[in-house]
Amino acid sequence: MPRVVVDVMPKPEILDPQGKAVLGALPRLGFTGVSDVRQGKRFELEVDGEVTEEVLDRVRDMAETLLSNPVIENYTVHVEQAASQA
Amino acid sequence: MPRVVVDVMPKPEILDPQGKAVLGALPRLGFTGVSDVRQGKRFELEVDGEVTEEVLDRVRDMAETLLSNPVIENYTVHVEQAASQA
Repeated sequence: MPRVVVDVMPKPEILDPQGKAVLGALPRLGFTGVSDVRQGKRFELEVDGEVTEEVLDRVRDMAETLLSNPVIENYTVHVEQAASQA
Repeated sequence: MPRVVVDVMPKPEILDPQGKAVLGALPRLGFTGVSDVRQGKRFELEVDGEVTEEVLDRVRDMAETLLSNPVIENYTVHVEQAASQA
């Protein structure tokens, strides 16, 4: 069954305290070489039937109204084949 | 600059109250045709220099120890070309 994925990330100009907390924790755990971390959300939607362009348009509407806050967040929508997540 | 993405999702057998809340809200907003929603986290890491297999191994270590809870969450690591996020 195809799965539609919506990735929601804080806009580049918006402060991201969660990402900063992760970035600060990395060297304390012995990890180096990472210069920035941003933390966002990932939604996996199982849709009934085929994923047509019309379905993707509806998912973009969902992303706009429910899954993201368009003032401070960007979102991307893409299709993924399910049941391959390790 | 390449960006390493870590996607963290609740394991299939783990209850996901956030996803369930989204799923319940969709019909109230007039959206139909979605049978399940899972909500997870997305981390975007800017790494210094080239993304070698060794760097990806270190990112997997980070995912294992800091970014995810391996008891209840799965993670995937992949590389993405930055500055193309809409």
